[in-house]
Amino acid sequence: MRDREEAVNYLSELLGVEEWKVREALKRGTIRRVKLSFPDFEYYRLVRDFGGYERGTLVVPEHDLVVRGFPKIERALLLEPALRTRFGDGGRVVVEEKMNGHNVRLFEVEGEVYAATRGGLICPYTTHRVRELCGEELRSFLEDHPDTVVCAEFVGRENPYVSKEYPEAPDVGLFVFDVRDLDGRFWSFEEKRAVDEYGLERVRCFGEFSVEEAVEEVPRIIRELDREGREGVVIKDPGREKPPLKYTTHSAHVEELEWAFTFAFDLGRDFVLTRTIREGFQSFEWEEDEEELERRAADVGRAIVEGLRRALERMRDGGGAVEEVPLTFASMRWYRRYEEFVKHVTGGTHTLEIVSEDDDGRVKAVLKKRYVRTEDKVKSIFEEGVL
Amino acid sequence: MRDREEAVNYLSELLGVEEWKVREALKRGTIRRVKLSFPDFEYYRLVRDFGGYERGTLVVPEHDLVVRGFPKIERALLLEPALRTRFGDGGRVVVEEKMNGHNVRLFEVEGEVYAATRGGLICPYTTHRVRELCGEELRSFLEDHPDTVVCAEFVGRENPYVSKEYPEAPDVGLFVFDVRDLDGRFWSFEEKRAVDEYGLERVRCFGEFSVEEAVEEVPRIIRELDREGREGVVIKDPGREKPPLKYTTHSAHVEELEWAFTFAFDLGRDFVLTRTIREGFQSFEWEEDEEELERRAADVGRAIVEGLRRALERMRDGGGAVEEVPLTFASMRWYRRYEEFVKHVTGGTHTLEIVSEDDDGRVKAVLKKRYVRTEDKVKSIFEEGVL
Repeated sequence: MRDREEAVNYLSELLGVEEWKVREALKRGTIRRVKLSFPDFEYYRLVRDFGGYERGTLVVPEHDLVVRGFPKIERALLLEPALRTRFGDGGRVVVEEKMNGHNVRLFEVEGEVYAATRGGLICPYTTHRVRELCGEELRSFLEDHPDTVVCAEFVGRENPYVSKEYPEAPDVGLFVFDVRDLDGRFWSFEEKRAVDEYGLERVRCFGEFSVEEAVEEVPRIIRELDREGREGVVIKDPGREKPPLKYTTHSAHVEELEWAFTFAFDLGRDFVLTRTIREGFQSFEWEEDEEELERRAADVGRAIVEGLRRALERMRDGGGAVEEVPLTFASMRWYRRYEEFVKHVTGGTHTLEIVSEDDDGRVKAVLKKRYVRTEDKVKSIFEEGVL
Repeated sequence: MRDREEAVNYLSELLGVEEWKVREALKRGTIRRVKLSFPDFEYYRLVRDFGGYERGTLVVPEHDLVVRGFPKIERALLLEPALRTRFGDGGRVVVEEKMNGHNVRLFEVEGEVYAATRGGLICPYTTHRVRELCGEELRSFLEDHPDTVVCAEFVGRENPYVSKEYPEAPDVGLFVFDVRDLDGRFWSFEEKRAVDEYGLERVRCFGEFSVEEAVEEVPRIIRELDREGREGVVIKDPGREKPPLKYTTHSAHVEELEWAFTFAFDLGRDFVLTRTIREGFQSFEWEEDEEELERRAADVGRAIVEGLRRALERMRDGGGAVEEVPLTFASMRWYRRYEEFVKHVTGGTHTLEIVSEDDDGRVKAVLKKRYVRTEDKVKSIFEEGVL
């Protein structure tokens, strides 16, 4: 784009939104321009819902492309009323696993696959790991279905955003959960199965159920996932017309609480009330007996109190409020691209360090995510005793 | 006050703040006018710090009276650095009990005692119960010391703001913790003891210590208070020049967490992170062993998960999100005055109901405090399953 007015013009046309609204949105930062060394095209992203487009929508003016943001999935706090109200008595649902990674939208520009984060940023790390994992499969699928976006969970230990090991994806892995037309329509469960023929992996599907069956089955599935330390499920209309619902496990809540209290002054506020409320409702709906309730409560309390205490001990012993994620890059070139991206996105609180460079050019690195507020507050409390 | 400009004039003069600032503050609601049937004079209160006066400052123009708001007491999260930084190595401190009630400021207007809440409202209930309890003692003290305010904790089961039973105050009780000149100076510990001669009760004092002793003694005192289910301590400069510090017990944190989760959608956000952080720092500073840590964590988890679960069960069984506090009034006249006050302050979410009227005119009543957000949210989750 040569100048802002040209951008206004293009965006207005591509989004079908009046120019003055686009101009205002650019000024307020609702629409932001991104131009880094990767990708080699400039794009715009919506940091809030705007003009009928979801937050995270990404626009590439020079390729006339609009990739809609992935809609927020509503959470069931009580399964039974949620299933009945959302899908109706006699309705049917497909239950899929909700994996704990980050939601990426995969699309194609001039024969190359790109991965967009939830916020509408094209992530060089995710993009190049996905290309390695299943670039050919995706390209082939997207060539046959040119006006679509593949929505998938990028997971694994080497995921910079949510580092969590999955047996089926020890380093990283990609699992498709939706396909969406560019115009916003989600493919039905039946249609979506087309990705299998291209060799793409889908998230686990636990089956199709009537609402009545699901009321019994989902808690059973959730208990099983809980024992395996996995996150939860997304419950979908098989035709993908009614919006889906998510529902998560005790172990996911506890794991997130412990993580939140490791960086309490950064994450506590957003995490603690939501997760504890989920626990209260789950215990209530499942009518747990005293023993189960005691165990659940002890897990919650331990995550909170020990999470914070261990973090304080680490900081007293000279550690910072830093989360480290191991990452592997195909080359120094990709490392540099991601380094630039991380700096752009975090303003320098997250940094990359090289651990080793292999003979084949692969780079082992570590991403250090610094939680600045926690570090500053705890340091000050160590010194002054007060907040 | 005949009109706003007259009020601006008076307030400006009494507070020593320029007229335009007072006018602006009245317009923005920083200064609010209160005129109810009790007291029979009009007054103004500051809902935020303003012009060098603390939030809760109360101004009675027709009696040329300004009662300063009680300053917020800073909390120690780690005792040792807090004591050393605040009071200096070699410094001395007085340790007093922090009781769990509400902070009232007692002052005199034309020979009558009035009780102001933290927010600067003259509470008819507190005022008349205090007059019954120790009206003569207070009057006598305030007559001898005309330009002072007595700062005290109003506690007990029949406290509408924090209903908590104390063995030394089964229904209600009043315990002095500070005396302050109208100009803002707090009396030293030695000076303050003058209230004893008037028959007024002071909060428990655990003694005067050097900072070095206090580092050892305060945790011991806190553990004792914890076992008794009491709230904590306030640690003061004996000369009352350096600002005091407060420090609270595990049992107080747990009790408040359980209460907060009974009305989770109203109180959760403000309570849960603060209390859990206090627990983490206390466990860290006291270097608790695994067993103590487990016990603390279990208490915290139980307060949270069971607090919410029990509240949900009560609401499922037809109860609302309502806290009930028993109150006793000396007469119907005082009942009506408080009824008007409660309506003015809460806009009708809290209501009073008469339980019985004794032959001597005393009225037993119950205050029903409705937590509207919790009631609405939970009702909607019971129906729709989602938030």
